[in-house]
Amino acid sequence: MTTVLELGKKAKRAALDMAALSSDARDGALRRMAARLRQAKDDILAANALDIAAAKERGTKASFVERLTLSDKRVEDMARGLEMVADLPDPIGRADRMWTRPNGLRILQKRVPLGVVGIIFESRPNVTADAAAICVKSGNACILRGGSEAIRSNCAIMDALEAGARDAGLPDGAVSLVRDPSRDAATALMRLTGYLDVLIPRGGAGLIRAVLENARVPVIETGTGNCHVYVDEHCHDLDMAYTVCYNAKLRRVSVCNAMETLLVHRAAAPAFLPEMLERFRKAGVEIRGCARTKALCPWVRDASEEDWATEYNDYILAVRIVDSLDEAIDHINTYGTRHSEAILTGDVRSAQRFLDRVDAAAVYVNAPTSFTDGGEFGFGAEIGISNQKLHARGPMGPEHLTTIKYEILGQGQTRP
Amino acid sequence: MTTVLELGKKAKRAALDMAALSSDARDGALRRMAARLRQAKDDILAANALDIAAAKERGTKASFVERLTLSDKRVEDMARGLEMVADLPDPIGRADRMWTRPNGLRILQKRVPLGVVGIIFESRPNVTADAAAICVKSGNACILRGGSEAIRSNCAIMDALEAGARDAGLPDGAVSLVRDPSRDAATALMRLTGYLDVLIPRGGAGLIRAVLENARVPVIETGTGNCHVYVDEHCHDLDMAYTVCYNAKLRRVSVCNAMETLLVHRAAAPAFLPEMLERFRKAGVEIRGCARTKALCPWVRDASEEDWATEYNDYILAVRIVDSLDEAIDHINTYGTRHSEAILTGDVRSAQRFLDRVDAAAVYVNAPTSFTDGGEFGFGAEIGISNQKLHARGPMGPEHLTTIKYEILGQGQTRP
Repeated sequence: MTTVLELGKKAKRAALDMAALSSDARDGALRRMAARLRQAKDDILAANALDIAAAKERGTKASFVERLTLSDKRVEDMARGLEMVADLPDPIGRADRMWTRPNGLRILQKRVPLGVVGIIFESRPNVTADAAAICVKSGNACILRGGSEAIRSNCAIMDALEAGARDAGLPDGAVSLVRDPSRDAATALMRLTGYLDVLIPRGGAGLIRAVLENARVPVIETGTGNCHVYVDEHCHDLDMAYTVCYNAKLRRVSVCNAMETLLVHRAAAPAFLPEMLERFRKAGVEIRGCARTKALCPWVRDASEEDWATEYNDYILAVRIVDSLDEAIDHINTYGTRHSEAILTGDVRSAQRFLDRVDAAAVYVNAPTSFTDGGEFGFGAEIGISNQKLHARGPMGPEHLTTIKYEILGQGQTRP
Repeated sequence: MTTVLELGKKAKRAALDMAALSSDARDGALRRMAARLRQAKDDILAANALDIAAAKERGTKASFVERLTLSDKRVEDMARGLEMVADLPDPIGRADRMWTRPNGLRILQKRVPLGVVGIIFESRPNVTADAAAICVKSGNACILRGGSEAIRSNCAIMDALEAGARDAGLPDGAVSLVRDPSRDAATALMRLTGYLDVLIPRGGAGLIRAVLENARVPVIETGTGNCHVYVDEHCHDLDMAYTVCYNAKLRRVSVCNAMETLLVHRAAAPAFLPEMLERFRKAGVEIRGCARTKALCPWVRDASEEDWATEYNDYILAVRIVDSLDEAIDHINTYGTRHSEAILTGDVRSAQRFLDRVDAAAVYVNAPTSFTDGGEFGFGAEIGISNQKLHARGPMGPEHLTTIKYEILGQGQTRP
């Protein structure tokens, strides 16, 4: 088996050639990879069946097995995903800007690939194809590492992707998978200094923590979202508020952009909160509220300090009544994870203060946090949602796997 | 003494207020800080004298003492530096772009401060003022940590900066210094997860290594530059080549953008190299060449494999004759540190291939690598030169201490 270091060396060499490929060459490769995936469908499903059998034997819970499971449709979706990414605009080769210095030097700031992108992910084998697609699109070499429970599926998918890459003449090592499922191999990837230009973990809090602790290469932290919706004193359109809050919580409770705490101004609470919480109760949502929420809706459970800081990813919602806009902003800046936050209001000054003062990747006025997503933002595809401020913040599409290069044209100038 | 964790907590709170300050408020604070620096000149020089005495007692070498030494002029330069940064355009509050989604959601991508910036630096106490200036300009709170040998000078400078910040009503903790000179305090800063949005080390290879090894917060790696100039087969303007190469090596040998290896196409070598190397010899530069270089200039010393990989920062130059443009590109991509690289040529195809294929932050045609600098690029001020591809690449000015925030305006849309 190829060691992680060998994968790194190959990928680094491949990255130099990838960066010089035309858009047509990269898009053509994505289409060849899609074709090979379709051809390899039976092999992929057979490998997946072995992963599923092993997971069931270990007594893995049903929701996990569901995420692990591939089907004819899921393989076809992966292939279509590759073709869809091929159809996106090219994120590299564009100039951000060009300027001329007083001494005549002309400086062009150009978008180029990052180089070698590492991605560590969990359970869902389709990420292998999705992640490889975005990396090839943006001219990067990639080294992927999936969860050990999906190792056979991931290897079968990568076999097809590598075959497609070879068909299209991509350099050897342009797309690769860490086929060693051991923890040591994952750690080796996190420490591949000098070979990885960035490492992106995609998965639960445990994975993110392990990567932040062990990585010695640049990391883009993704994932956790303790998101809030604040119903302002000046929110008079209650129907809009019911609809937006409902969507923010219940579109999918398990995702990082779901609302976890609902904040309500005390002046808005009496008219809004009882009906809203009744709707949530009917939808099976457990409510944990502050003392004032309980005064309005005695049936809710007590919220503790811990609730404000918890990302449930479940049918649970914390609710707090606040005395002012600034108290809502403070609450969010104290307990939030700087992901997505929303205010519902008809007042322009409240909206502006919330936008200015809340520290988060995406701040919404009169729309639910559910929209924080690469597709919804129009990025075409998403490699993850960055939770940090460095390099990329919020949803990351192909353009976020690029960096800049300064090209400077002189006529023999020297620096004094 | 305030602990590093306490500094982090204060800075994090301060950052929220800093982000909401007007440009006038930030620029006014920089001017107050400059005024306080001038007022505190005697205290600063007295503290500096103690640092110098201690350094001499430890038998520190003269060049180091020189870097540590402040004077009337150097204090005045610091104050002027603060005022100059105040005069730069505001890097935050601008929109990068705005677009409207098919569902009517309007997405504004806005420049905002990073939040809390940590900077670890060595010896030169003036960095305390320079770094604080760029952070305040860009709306960030900062925590600085200088070398232990300059601790008294840095504390005196920070006393003045803090007084100016207070005068101007900046939030408490907007600018701060780790006043504990111990290694433990530095490590605590590197592990201030949840408080530092970025840590920037400025200094020698040892410092950078220590930060990469110990940091658990996002880091922007700076510094090392093993830069090359390649004289192409089609470089016919030899006078230009002599001048540019001389400037690239000798403007200052100790800086990261200085040329460390000269590559020459074999067709250009006989006419160019003997005269060029003679000029370097006269300037006191030791030459280490490949076998073919020695054949042309028998007086040069042998270069070893190690020489290709060395950043001398000294009056030493490695020289290699190559058979082709691609061999030069391979050499650079193998031994370079992705900092600054130059080709001297009259041929447009050589220039284009070099620009496309060399992987570096700044790639020059017919100009020396010496120009890689925030001031020379027109950024007004420089916090360092990034050596990585994530977030910022090449010279970093105030605009590189910013991130984005998406502001999304809806009218009650929900996501299906």
